[in-house]
Amino acid sequence: MAITVVGTVALDSVQSPFGNIEEGLGGSATHFSASAIFFSQVHLAAVIGADFPEEHIQWMQSRGINFDCLQRLPGKSFRWKGRYDYDLNTAHTLDTQLNVLTDFNPRLSDEAKDNKFLFLGNIAPDIQDRTIDQMEGQPFIAADTMNFWIEGARKDLLKVLKRVNLLIINESEARALSQEHNLIKASKAILTMGPKLLLIKRGEYGALAFDGSNIFNAPALPLEDIMDPTGAGDSFAGGVMGYLSRTKDTSFQNMKRAMIYGSVMASFIVEDFSCDRLRTLQKNEISGRYLEFCSLTHFENYTESKPDLQNFG
Amino acid sequence: MAITVVGTVALDSVQSPFGNIEEGLGGSATHFSASAIFFSQVHLAAVIGADFPEEHIQWMQSRGINFDCLQRLPGKSFRWKGRYDYDLNTAHTLDTQLNVLTDFNPRLSDEAKDNKFLFLGNIAPDIQDRTIDQMEGQPFIAADTMNFWIEGARKDLLKVLKRVNLLIINESEARALSQEHNLIKASKAILTMGPKLLLIKRGEYGALAFDGSNIFNAPALPLEDIMDPTGAGDSFAGGVMGYLSRTKDTSFQNMKRAMIYGSVMASFIVEDFSCDRLRTLQKNEISGRYLEFCSLTHFENYTESKPDLQNFG
Repeated sequence: MAITVVGTVALDSVQSPFGNIEEGLGGSATHFSASAIFFSQVHLAAVIGADFPEEHIQWMQSRGINFDCLQRLPGKSFRWKGRYDYDLNTAHTLDTQLNVLTDFNPRLSDEAKDNKFLFLGNIAPDIQDRTIDQMEGQPFIAADTMNFWIEGARKDLLKVLKRVNLLIINESEARALSQEHNLIKASKAILTMGPKLLLIKRGEYGALAFDGSNIFNAPALPLEDIMDPTGAGDSFAGGVMGYLSRTKDTSFQNMKRAMIYGSVMASFIVEDFSCDRLRTLQKNEISGRYLEFCSLTHFENYTESKPDLQNFG
Repeated sequence: MAITVVGTVALDSVQSPFGNIEEGLGGSATHFSASAIFFSQVHLAAVIGADFPEEHIQWMQSRGINFDCLQRLPGKSFRWKGRYDYDLNTAHTLDTQLNVLTDFNPRLSDEAKDNKFLFLGNIAPDIQDRTIDQMEGQPFIAADTMNFWIEGARKDLLKVLKRVNLLIINESEARALSQEHNLIKASKAILTMGPKLLLIKRGEYGALAFDGSNIFNAPALPLEDIMDPTGAGDSFAGGVMGYLSRTKDTSFQNMKRAMIYGSVMASFIVEDFSCDRLRTLQKNEISGRYLEFCSLTHFENYTESKPDLQNFG
């Protein structure tokens, strides 16, 4: 099983209270792929400029990410510059240079068209839509977006959402999209727009899943040293979709485990700038941290543990 | 087993986007007791003024809360007025009238002195300290506090903390007390101040437990209709201490269940103004919501479910 992902490959400059990085490897498709590749094959559809550092391409290829749908255009690569304060939940954008992204028209390879899982990273809704158009069969489609598109390209976005199985967005995006402050009300509104599954990311507070009948809470792992939260959301999505693709099971029960793997991947990516933590990450570290999430969240049902409370009701 | 609690009994006026209440039954000791009484006997030590409505006293007595340590002084009762916006995590204080609270000197009954559990609700640290002085034996002592005391009575507070087993405070209080922004670092600092257990409340995001080796995340139940978050923290503490007292087990494993019961009680109190939701609450509703927390948080370990991931590492 493999995943097709469309999104951005970027050069990110980030300032956080814990350090800075200039033109590090970033972008929604990059972070998603670097995370998902631990679980599944990945075909990455994106665009880079003539100036994109060869070392970044080589590292992603060495990880096994398929680049048949990567386009290199004349001109400069997409760049993003941002800053975080001690509240690492909020990114302050300092500068965005679209450059070659302006002319991006995704073209999927025959292999990428055939994949059973598609992830639409945060990019213009019409690009997301044109990617869906190229898929053969009926893949499981997940999408991310941001307030920029919710406010500026709402009509295009709503068209895409009708074709999407799973929407993965953050709290403020869910509120903006649904125009509801309360997350339960927001989830109900969004689940009428197309997606049958909704994951709401809450930064250091974890993520919630909604399918209209069930709710699941995946916590974030409290971490002592967070260097750079950039890419945490895309790494989360990469873990989620990677696990779904690997297990070929999109039930709500399996989504719970997928979200924990997503949270595991997000917990690693924030430990260093760019994707640097993933350069050394081993699969047994992923399994180990999954077990940390078990002890972080699991408690015994009172009927298992305390006979005197069995008849509490 | 019974719990002694010292704190405030107040008349609260609250404005929220969902309605208003004038001079409703409130206060840290009130909310704590009204919650804990579902699990355990409670002796309430507090002060009220001559103007305190008899109906509130009668309701609490009808719930079985012991009032032998309740003092009624000449003068007006303690009053608090606050406002919430759509972000229900933050209370904006509009007015505080201490009134009889200024002269409060707790005097415990012989029964209350003998209890094995003591909860020090949010009140001046020197009152908390004088309450501990009166206890016989070595009770399990939990305390709450607020930024007003952390900033204005730090020395008194640190003296109390040395005598406390469990501190239950919110995120901003943990940061102010420890002078660390990161919650892991904050927990380490606070666990050197006396308490061997720390619960950090995070409003709609739930609560975290720390004992220096383990971390547990209790989520809050996502709710569609929240009327008034006043008292959620004290109801949480009441559920926690009520369950610990009922089960006579203060281990970390049992604390996890206690926190879920605390979260259950907090999820009810916010559904109406004042303690009104507890007037009709039945024990089988508590058990039912505990099971909702199970499905909200539990996922299968991969070794239980997906053989193909057993050898993931």
